Amino acid sequence: MSVDVDVRGISIGILGGTGDQGKGLARRFALAGNPVLIGSRSEERAREAAAGIGGSVRGAGNQTVAAEADVVIVAIPWEGHRATLESLRAELTGKIVIDCVNPLGFDKQGAYALPVEEGSAAQQAAAVLPDSRVVAAFHHVSAVLLLDPEVAEVDLDVLVLGDDREATDTVQALAGRIPGVRGVYGGRLRNAHQVEALTANLISVNRRYKAHAGFRVTDV
Amino acid sequence: MSVDVDVRGISIGILGGTGDQGKGLARRFALAGNPVLIGSRSEERAREAAAGIGGSVRGAGNQTVAAEADVVIVAIPWEGHRATLESLRAELTGKIVIDCVNPLGFDKQGAYALPVEEGSAAQQAAAVLPDSRVVAAFHHVSAVLLLDPEVAEVDLDVLVLGDDREATDTVQALAGRIPGVRGVYGGRLRNAHQVEALTANLISVNRRYKAHAGFRVTDV
Repeated sequence: MSVDVDVRGISIGILGGTGDQGKGLARRFALAGNPVLIGSRSEERAREAAAGIGGSVRGAGNQTVAAEADVVIVAIPWEGHRATLESLRAELTGKIVIDCVNPLGFDKQGAYALPVEEGSAAQQAAAVLPDSRVVAAFHHVSAVLLLDPEVAEVDLDVLVLGDDREATDTVQALAGRIPGVRGVYGGRLRNAHQVEALTANLISVNRRYKAHAGFRVTDV
Repeated sequence: MSVDVDVRGISIGILGGTGDQGKGLARRFALAGNPVLIGSRSEERAREAAAGIGGSVRGAGNQTVAAEADVVIVAIPWEGHRATLESLRAELTGKIVIDCVNPLGFDKQGAYALPVEEGSAAQQAAAVLPDSRVVAAFHHVSAVLLLDPEVAEVDLDVLVLGDDREATDTVQALAGRIPGVRGVYGGRLRNAHQVEALTANLISVNRRYKAHAGFRVTDV
């Protein structure tokens, strides 16, 4: 599991960082000591969200965040996924881009996976950002647990998928910055769809058991 | 997790029971004390496989197994999935049918999910068997661990999916017959695809970490 990558000084930008998942990740990475930049279409909302989290978290527009951060997490709603990434192609060139977007629909029976032309949100990101190093990760983290000050450790393995070994190693190490969390390599990007879609199953599990469920990988 | 269903006396038929996954499940259910019937297109091969497992396991043709067993597990290769189930529609009427088939392709880069017209193998089973109660489960069990006499407990949660509560409760209870295993409700049948496809990711995990990986659901 453990990967030999030092990610302590890496700055982390979070596009769509004003949503619950983005804020939760920002909070945990800031607690771990990494510089964190929250991005939003609205610079003002980004600053408000950053102030709400506190610590060293700063807020800025998505474009500034994409340009300044070492590693960029995509936590935007699925609806704006393609357009937002297309607009940031230049800023994201050469960078590790971590896609944690789950394309899901909801109806009376709960959540279900939406079809994605490219196969998955992560593959769409890779198609739109051919000069970035796209990694899929952080799909199953519970925003509730990440944001809860009573939760010291999060009982979860983060599946990390990608085709660039150095990039997946880096993201595994980043996942390990959150107490309790392990980053586990989970396959190539072409197998990202089912990891994204599995969030629908977690939502079913949470409803049935009134839980904030996650997954652990056994025997690794 | 625990479901109030007594499945001790239930007889379990396993179509395609001469494959490793079928044999592994047969072995564990027989050890748990359930009557087990292994099915194959060839009655002779089914009898040989049953004799190889020992205990009270019996072998027969798929048709006999489908007709006689209380609950039927579908562990046949994906290639013959639709045709085999179509040929057993009458025998499977009214029964709980547990589909554990993973439609996967393989190439130099490893395993990947195959597209399925109905969405998933389990949904195809439900479409072909409208008068059966189809449940998806046992996708991620390692045949190696199930067959290993040194492995007393299997460190794994079995995700159980289906639209019939009584049927999913029964299958959860059956999963719990294998020492170490919990049966966890994992959503409706329409969310079975990602659970089947996730087996491709487990294969990647196993390659990277030289493991027999599975999943545990946290916080339930």
